Amino acid sequence: MSNANDETLELGLRFDAQGLIPAIIIDQSDNAVLMFAFMNAEAFAETQRTGVVHFYSRSRAKLWMKGETSGETFEVVEMLVDCDQDVLLVRVKPQGVGNACHTGRRSCFYREIKDKVLVFKN
Amino acid sequence: MSNANDETLELGLRFDAQGLIPAIIIDQSDNAVLMFAFMNAEAFAETQRTGVVHFYSRSRAKLWMKGETSGETFEVVEMLVDCDQDVLLVRVKPQGVGNACHTGRRSCFYREIKDKVLVFKN
Repeated sequence: MSNANDETLELGLRFDAQGLIPAIIIDQSDNAVLMFAFMNAEAFAETQRTGVVHFYSRSRAKLWMKGETSGETFEVVEMLVDCDQDVLLVRVKPQGVGNACHTGRRSCFYREIKDKVLVFKN
Repeated sequence: MSNANDETLELGLRFDAQGLIPAIIIDQSDNAVLMFAFMNAEAFAETQRTGVVHFYSRSRAKLWMKGETSGETFEVVEMLVDCDQDVLLVRVKPQGVGNACHTGRRSCFYREIKDKVLVFKN
């Protein structure tokens, strides 16, 4: 079912009841999904202002610049929004050595689900 | 900060307080992000059982097979889980004519955020 949000060119992000919006981070070089986290309005504003990805940490209840301790920051190449403006897709150029995941891997998605178990992919 | 969830090969999905887990859908042909939605435990189980992507609709409060009315179903190629097992990445082979978005576009992410406005990308 289509609605006015689908075709508008007016930015009107729809944050959820907790004030958050999901953000999918992909690498500009090959579209690989690197990670997923949430932004709040402040994190979104800081990301736009600085050109560097910021998130809101639910566990620490604070704004954080991705990579502020690890050095694995994300330079924003472009930000897209989905049809109903409640999800962000952020194309980035990873800085640092390119290990987006806190485990030291390039991407947080390194295990495949095989029936009831996981298998390392990368 | 690393934890036991990072390296385990035991499947232990972490659904949120509403019983949901985010699912990012990418096209197996080129990794393009097609859409984003939520699964609950039942939707995940049905997706595994049938090999076709199912979601949980928060607005309709029910399980649905993506494409059940449009024909734009997603055949699962593989499912990955992130480091802390609270996000799914599903690689799919789109069926139907390949318009994943309800607006008739291939992907839900067809508008770029340019400062305070949106610009059509695709």
